Amino acid sequence: MRAVYWKKGSLYILDQTALPLKVRWLRCSKVSEVCHAIKVLAVRGAPAIGVAAAYGMALSKRMKADAKSLKASRSTAVDLEHAVDFVLLEIRGGKSALDAAMIWDNTNTEKCKSISERGASLIKKGSTILTHCNTGFLATNEYGSALGAIKEAAKQGKKIHVIVDETRPRLQGWLTSWELLRAKIPHTMIVDSAAGFLMRTGKIDAVMVGADRIVKNGDFANKIGTCSLAMLAKECGVPFYVLAPMSSFDRKIANGNKIKIEIRDSSEILGKAFKKTKALNLAFDVTPSRYVTGYVNEFGVFRRIESLWKSTKE
Amino acid sequence: MRAVYWKKGSLYILDQTALPLKVRWLRCSKVSEVCHAIKVLAVRGAPAIGVAAAYGMALSKRMKADAKSLKASRSTAVDLEHAVDFVLLEIRGGKSALDAAMIWDNTNTEKCKSISERGASLIKKGSTILTHCNTGFLATNEYGSALGAIKEAAKQGKKIHVIVDETRPRLQGWLTSWELLRAKIPHTMIVDSAAGFLMRTGKIDAVMVGADRIVKNGDFANKIGTCSLAMLAKECGVPFYVLAPMSSFDRKIANGNKIKIEIRDSSEILGKAFKKTKALNLAFDVTPSRYVTGYVNEFGVFRRIESLWKSTKE
Repeated sequence: MRAVYWKKGSLYILDQTALPLKVRWLRCSKVSEVCHAIKVLAVRGAPAIGVAAAYGMALSKRMKADAKSLKASRSTAVDLEHAVDFVLLEIRGGKSALDAAMIWDNTNTEKCKSISERGASLIKKGSTILTHCNTGFLATNEYGSALGAIKEAAKQGKKIHVIVDETRPRLQGWLTSWELLRAKIPHTMIVDSAAGFLMRTGKIDAVMVGADRIVKNGDFANKIGTCSLAMLAKECGVPFYVLAPMSSFDRKIANGNKIKIEIRDSSEILGKAFKKTKALNLAFDVTPSRYVTGYVNEFGVFRRIESLWKSTKE
Repeated sequence: MRAVYWKKGSLYILDQTALPLKVRWLRCSKVSEVCHAIKVLAVRGAPAIGVAAAYGMALSKRMKADAKSLKASRSTAVDLEHAVDFVLLEIRGGKSALDAAMIWDNTNTEKCKSISERGASLIKKGSTILTHCNTGFLATNEYGSALGAIKEAAKQGKKIHVIVDETRPRLQGWLTSWELLRAKIPHTMIVDSAAGFLMRTGKIDAVMVGADRIVKNGDFANKIGTCSLAMLAKECGVPFYVLAPMSSFDRKIANGNKIKIEIRDSSEILGKAFKKTKALNLAFDVTPSRYVTGYVNEFGVFRRIESLWKSTKE
């Protein structure tokens, strides 16, 4: 199963706002429909958004304006920019937008497969892994990043247990649970705030998360709550790994303070019943590199961000 | 306004499961109704549960059995035991159960007033205080513990801002917001997992929480998420205060590992729509004393638990 695919001139997006209760596909035949699907989180997860946007370009009749709209549909994940720029570059090189999008898609799949395998090598037999948000095939289109590694470890017979943060306010933990149920991997959902206590009492062997943008000094943006987990993991001596394809890395930004964090509508937290309360709905937070035990991308596992930059060309 | 009160032979409980949308009072004229109200969280917060249980004893026709039922209605908060035992002791001394309950109630109010004033002295002008769960009059019957201190500081004109954790799964942050709206104190709700990022980026000047049971070595049980906050506060250099009346202290338990933690139904986290996922719903967690900057009770502010035990007789 894939989160998005192209068929006969249309882009099909598995509507993640309907999961886990319903498997519903959105058919997009206009760029505006792709932008909308990204905005309302029907497709989410930095790499999956990138693939959707690449195919979005294949639906475009006004390349420049549509590239701009697609890039503006979410602000924190960098894959979106990278994917759209890749298609624009390939077009200039003579390829069709669709061919370029397919290359992006296939390359992304290979990267995620590699990340899953490399990440799985960090997971010990019989261990309990905590993960936050959703980083499976729904978030990357195929395989996954953090959840890809977890699934690969289970596939290798490592008999792991997964602790799934529910991930307020949008509850992407449900998507993770849905993927884990499909893969028959034992797991337990918790409220986000319980993670610290489980780490403190020795119930968690490692934390694995994805990333929406990893910048030059190794600071990275990811789903709100990631920064808390990283600090808690350090305090409790639990290894903390970040898994993401090179397309989520952004060398142009020097450090985490310069990452633009998307602030979403407060109704995602508050609902609509009681209107007097105000909320701050930061969709992401930024974790300093000093809390990261290792970065995993398609090229390897890196303890320090400097060695990652040295070993990779992109 | 009070969370529970006695009138003409009945105990009235403000139903916290209906707030903030509705102000609804439950009238209890049988012990079983009081037990039920405690179990379903219509009344919650360690001191408020204690007061409700004390009045519950005034409805009893079978003291011994009802004392047992009341004590068994929640497991982690110690006030419940202390309040019931107090009534039993006073009855043996010749008082009526109702008189004893009223003494417990009034004493509790005085304690909470004192805690609020002492706690307020720790809050600096113009500061931003993070709080978790609800610790206002709803949780203590009058005044409050952590939220009592926050309200008192605001009343003293300290121009504070409050960051309110929504407190999954039961969202007691809504109760806190409702109390803060009534008191016209500016505040912002966040998802629980955002607290760490706000602390790391210098947005929080102090964390103030209540407690359900503080044991001999200073470890304490409180709403799930408290342990995470305490560890995050330490990592970020933010003071972390625990405020609770002496009735929430329990010298009989040596350390936090021996506190019984209530595990509630997983449906509080998962709802009922998607039944395949499993959840672990720890209602409380235990925070080690090393993370506590200060304990505040009706006798003072104590940097170390040893000095608290020395200064108090109870």
